[in-house]
Amino acid sequence: MLYWFDLLGVAVFAVSGALAAMQAGLDLFGLLVLAAVTAIGGGTLRDLLLNRHPIAWMRDGRYLLVIAVAALATATYGQLSPGAMKGLRVADALGLALFALTGTELAEDCGIRRIQALLMGTLTAVGGGVIRDVLSGQVPLLLRRDIYATAAIAGIALYQLLRAAGLKRDIAFVIGIVCVAGIRLAAIRYDWQLPSPELYR
Amino acid sequence: MLYWFDLLGVAVFAVSGALAAMQAGLDLFGLLVLAAVTAIGGGTLRDLLLNRHPIAWMRDGRYLLVIAVAALATATYGQLSPGAMKGLRVADALGLALFALTGTELAEDCGIRRIQALLMGTLTAVGGGVIRDVLSGQVPLLLRRDIYATAAIAGIALYQLLRAAGLKRDIAFVIGIVCVAGIRLAAIRYDWQLPSPELYR
Amino acid sequence: MLYWFDLLGVAVFAVSGALAAMQAGLDLFGLLVLAAVTAIGGGTLRDLLLNRHPIAWMRDGRYLLVIAVAALATATYGQLSPGAMKGLRVADALGLALFALTGTELAEDCGIRRIQALLMGTLTAVGGGVIRDVLSGQVPLLLRRDIYATAAIAGIALYQLLRAAGLKRDIAFVIGIVCVAGIRLAAIRYDWQLPSPELYR
Repeated sequence: MLYWFDLLGVAVFAVSGALAAMQAGLDLFGLLVLAAVTAIGGGTLRDLLLNRHPIAWMRDGRYLLVIAVAALATATYGQLSPGAMKGLRVADALGLALFALTGTELAEDCGIRRIQALLMGTLTAVGGGVIRDVLSGQVPLLLRRDIYATAAIAGIALYQLLRAAGLKRDIAFVIGIVCVAGIRLAAIRYDWQLPSPELYR
Repeated sequence: MLYWFDLLGVAVFAVSGALAAMQAGLDLFGLLVLAAVTAIGGGTLRDLLLNRHPIAWMRDGRYLLVIAVAALATATYGQLSPGAMKGLRVADALGLALFALTGTELAEDCGIRRIQALLMGTLTAVGGGVIRDVLSGQVPLLLRRDIYATAAIAGIALYQLLRAAGLKRDIAFVIGIVCVAGIRLAAIRYDWQLPSPELYR
Repeated sequence: MLYWFDLLGVAVFAVSGALAAMQAGLDLFGLLVLAAVTAIGGGTLRDLLLNRHPIAWMRDGRYLLVIAVAALATATYGQLSPGAMKGLRVADALGLALFALTGTELAEDCGIRRIQALLMGTLTAVGGGVIRDVLSGQVPLLLRRDIYATAAIAGIALYQLLRAAGLKRDIAFVIGIVCVAGIRLAAIRYDWQLPSPELYR
C-alpha cells in the first residue's frame, strides 16, 4: 500500500519536473532528466546520507518506468488547462506529504534520532525540487518564499509528537499526511508566506 | 588497456573543464577545480550511487596527476587554434564514448539491471559536465540542446543489445564506443538537435 | 578539545550562510537551510566520498543545535556593525583553518594517501561555501577570486611537510592552523589575488 503511494508521489513529482523543463526550454532528454531528479533526487540524497544501499530505484525498475511515462505524457499534453493545473497542485501537495512521512519512517528504521529523522523526511520531500531548480538555473523556489518545506516539517513534527504520545504508527502516519497536505493547500489558497529577515534595511 | 583509455578520457574532460573555467573568468584554483569535477565528477557520482568504495581517484594518484597536467597545460596554451579546437571536439567525443561504455560495464559488474546500468553509463559520461556547468553558473549545456547524452545512450543500448544477442563483451564494447563517438561527431557536423517540447505555445 | 573547535567552526560558517541567505532575500526556512549546508556541507561531502558512516551530525544533535542558534541569532541581529563584520572575517578565517586541518586528519585516519588527504581537507573547508553559493544562485565565490581555498591548501601542505619531517601531530596541527588563518587574513588585508588565465585575450 505504502509502496503504491510512493510510486504515485514519484509520478506527480516527475510531472512537476517535466513542466519545469518545458518552461526552461530544455530538449526531450533534459525533460527526462529533470523529471527523474525531481522525482527521485530527494530520496536518493536521503539514502546516500543514511548509507542505505541499494537505492530503491536501482533495484526496482518500476520507478524509472513511472517517471518515463509521466514525463512523456507531460511533454505530449503539456498545454495544461487551468483545471488540470489545479489538479496538479493538489497532487503535488499529496506527493509532498507522502514523501515527507515515508522519508521520516525510513530514516527512523535506520535508528537515527528524532530531529535527524525529521530532517531526512523533509529532505526526501523537497530535495528533488531543489536539484531541479539548481539544474534549471534558478535559486531554489523553496528557499525563496512559500510555505512548502515548512508544511512538511509541521506534519512530520505532529507525527512524531503523536508517536511519542503512544499513538499507533499507521494512524500517526495518516494524520501527518493530512497535516502536510492541508497546510500546503491552505498556504496556496490564502497565500501564506514565511517572514524574510532583511539585511541592512 | 581499458585503464589507459580511462585516463585518456580523464585528460580530455579536464581540458574541457579548464576551458570552461577560462571562459567564466575563474582564477587558477577555480580552473583546477573545474577541470577535476569535469573529469571525475561523473564517475564519482556513479560510485556513490552504486556504493563502490574506495572511489578510483582516492586510491590511484594518477587520476589527479593527469588532471593537474591537462589543466595547467590548457591554462598555458589556452589560445587554441581552430585546428586544435577541432581536435578537442574529436577527443571529447572519444572521452564521452569511453566513459559511457566503461561506466556501463562497471555498473553491470555491481549486479544491477540493464536499464540502471545504462543510466549509470550515461551518468559517468555526462555527470562531470553537468557539475561543471552548475559550478560555473550555467544551465547545464546537455539539458538544453544537442545530441550529447543521447549519443551515449544510443551506444550503450547498442552494446547491451549485442551482448543480449550473445556477442563477446570486448567486441560489443568496441562497437558501442564507435557508435557513441560516431553519432556525437555526426551531430556536431550536421548540427543535429533533439526536439524541444514547448509549453503554452 | 578538537571537538569543541569543530563546533566553533560550525557556528562561524552557519553565520556566514545565514548572512548570504539574507543578502539573497531568502525566507526564514531558506536561511536555516543555507546556514546548515554552509556549516556541514563540506564535512558531509568528505564523509560521503570517504564512506565514513554515520555522518557526524547524524548521530550528534549538537551540530544541528549550534547551527540553529547561530542562524537565528544572525537573523535577529543581522544589521552587523563594521566592527562585528571584522570579527566575523577573523572567525571565518579561523573556521577555514580548523576545518582544513581536522578534515585532513580525519581523511588520513581513513588510510588514504597524502594528496587525497589534502584534497579532503580542502573540501571540508570550502565545500559548504560552494554549496551555499550554488543554492543562492551564484558562481561559487572561491572559484572566482581571492586567496581562500589556496590558504587552506598551503596550510595543509605545511602540516604534511612537518609531519613527514617527523614533527608531532599536535604541533604540526597547530602550525597548520596558524598558517591557514594567517594567509587568509593577510590576503584580506593586502587584497592578494590569484592570477586568472584569460582565454582569447
